[in-house]
Amino acid sequence: MKVNKVLVIGVGLIGGSFAKGLRKRQLVEEVVGFGFHPEKLQKAVELGVLDRYETHLPTAVAEADLIMLAVPLGAMSSLLEEMNPYLRPETILTDAGSAKCSVIEAVKSVFGHLPSSFVAGHPIAGKESSGVEAADGNLFVKHRVILTPTEETDAKAIQAVKQLWQGLGACVSEMSPAYHDEVLAATSHLPHLLAFNLVDLLNEHEALGNVFQYTAGGFRDFTRIASSDATMWRDIAVNNREAIVKWLKNYRDSLDGMIELVEDKRGDQLFELFQAAKEARDLHIVQRGKELQDCDFE
Amino acid sequence: MKVNKVLVIGVGLIGGSFAKGLRKRQLVEEVVGFGFHPEKLQKAVELGVLDRYETHLPTAVAEADLIMLAVPLGAMSSLLEEMNPYLRPETILTDAGSAKCSVIEAVKSVFGHLPSSFVAGHPIAGKESSGVEAADGNLFVKHRVILTPTEETDAKAIQAVKQLWQGLGACVSEMSPAYHDEVLAATSHLPHLLAFNLVDLLNEHEALGNVFQYTAGGFRDFTRIASSDATMWRDIAVNNREAIVKWLKNYRDSLDGMIELVEDKRGDQLFELFQAAKEARDLHIVQRGKELQDCDFE
Repeated sequence: MKVNKVLVIGVGLIGGSFAKGLRKRQLVEEVVGFGFHPEKLQKAVELGVLDRYETHLPTAVAEADLIMLAVPLGAMSSLLEEMNPYLRPETILTDAGSAKCSVIEAVKSVFGHLPSSFVAGHPIAGKESSGVEAADGNLFVKHRVILTPTEETDAKAIQAVKQLWQGLGACVSEMSPAYHDEVLAATSHLPHLLAFNLVDLLNEHEALGNVFQYTAGGFRDFTRIASSDATMWRDIAVNNREAIVKWLKNYRDSLDGMIELVEDKRGDQLFELFQAAKEARDLHIVQRGKELQDCDFE
Repeated sequence: MKVNKVLVIGVGLIGGSFAKGLRKRQLVEEVVGFGFHPEKLQKAVELGVLDRYETHLPTAVAEADLIMLAVPLGAMSSLLEEMNPYLRPETILTDAGSAKCSVIEAVKSVFGHLPSSFVAGHPIAGKESSGVEAADGNLFVKHRVILTPTEETDAKAIQAVKQLWQGLGACVSEMSPAYHDEVLAATSHLPHLLAFNLVDLLNEHEALGNVFQYTAGGFRDFTRIASSDATMWRDIAVNNREAIVKWLKNYRDSLDGMIELVEDKRGDQLFELFQAAKEARDLHIVQRGKELQDCDFE
């Protein structure tokens, strides 16, 4: 299945990096952008992120071989509604949303069924800066992209999406939407919410004065993800609510256990916990690096 | 007050970086090391961290103009007991412990009073690697060092310790021991315990499989501090127990509020929280950089 024209809807950090990478590596013939702010699309063209942009959604949708939805989760439903009348059945539809069940539900609800040409996806990459200015054609190199096809999904559509991501240097895995949402709630959504919570907590405690001035690199790294885009994270929190609440509560319960250990001065048990975390983390960094190195990038 | 001979007890990351920096910048005549593992001290000499080392504590202590205690908090009391008979009253005693009230209590309890030559201190710098191999003479450049003198402390001793840290490129502040312990509980001890807790939580959930493989840079940064030394952190947890428990509970209560917002899909309030955190964090990074730039390093 040859993809010539790609339409990217939502040309921010992720959509822009996808577009820029496709162009840079000449993986398709043309990368067109669509969004609701023409001045940002113009900027994207100037930055070499897009070949051109469309301001008329029906034209843009009708012409595309593959459409990448890279808008916040909260914007998916209304966008799909608008696109629906103009989408050709052979056009491959994919997305980059951070939660997959809610996107699949939105597609099903708008189209009345799950089109075989729809391939839900999620690149595990990002930075705390957002917007097309931060777009980077190498953002996905040696990063995982997770596809969550369903039984309705056409194998050729999966293959086409997979090839584009691999062309961008990514390591593509497949899993069920529910497993994706659970794993990402634990490994990404939970730490983001924990970091937001810490910065908010310290920011509000004015009795202590500006405590941020006494922080060092550890704090800066720990809270880097608290500089992420608030709209995106609001939408993730709402759209992956169940799994996130579960993991926030798991975390809270585990924290209660740690509070008890500190209160009771249980040095030995604290040492064991800290040491286990250190070992798991050190191992994880080594392992993960190796796994991505071994990944089939062809 | 001229400091010629410096004795560093505990030649790990912090003690080693202090020693190496003093030598590199020729701030004193001789830097001697003491510790309970001669092979590590030998290694430190080979690495250029120390001029030489002593294996006999009484000699080492009696000869020093200034002694830096860079051992884990849990080792302070017994070390002070051992040193006490040999310490000359004019020898300046300082430390690098991450909690200050407990060190001051230990000194008071061992000596029966707070010697005027004792200057409690804490460099706000570190990395997740530990040991003398990780020692770096520039570790403290543009980093804060907090001194927490009491009313007993001699102004000249404070000045001598301050000058050494400034000579290493650090920005030196003074505050009360209790305020230090409260601020550091919030900005350093709390995030470390949160990171340990997250890694332990995910490490134990084997039902999900190895979730670490689906993490990216955000997770890596968030959990970097969970690779810190377990002994050091056990000692901090036990020795700054009260302030840490208070902040862990503050955090837990604040997290309960966030859980409620996600459960109730309060998108607007979540957006406000995330946005406030992002703004505080972005501002803090800019502000802090500026403050350390403006700091008097002379």
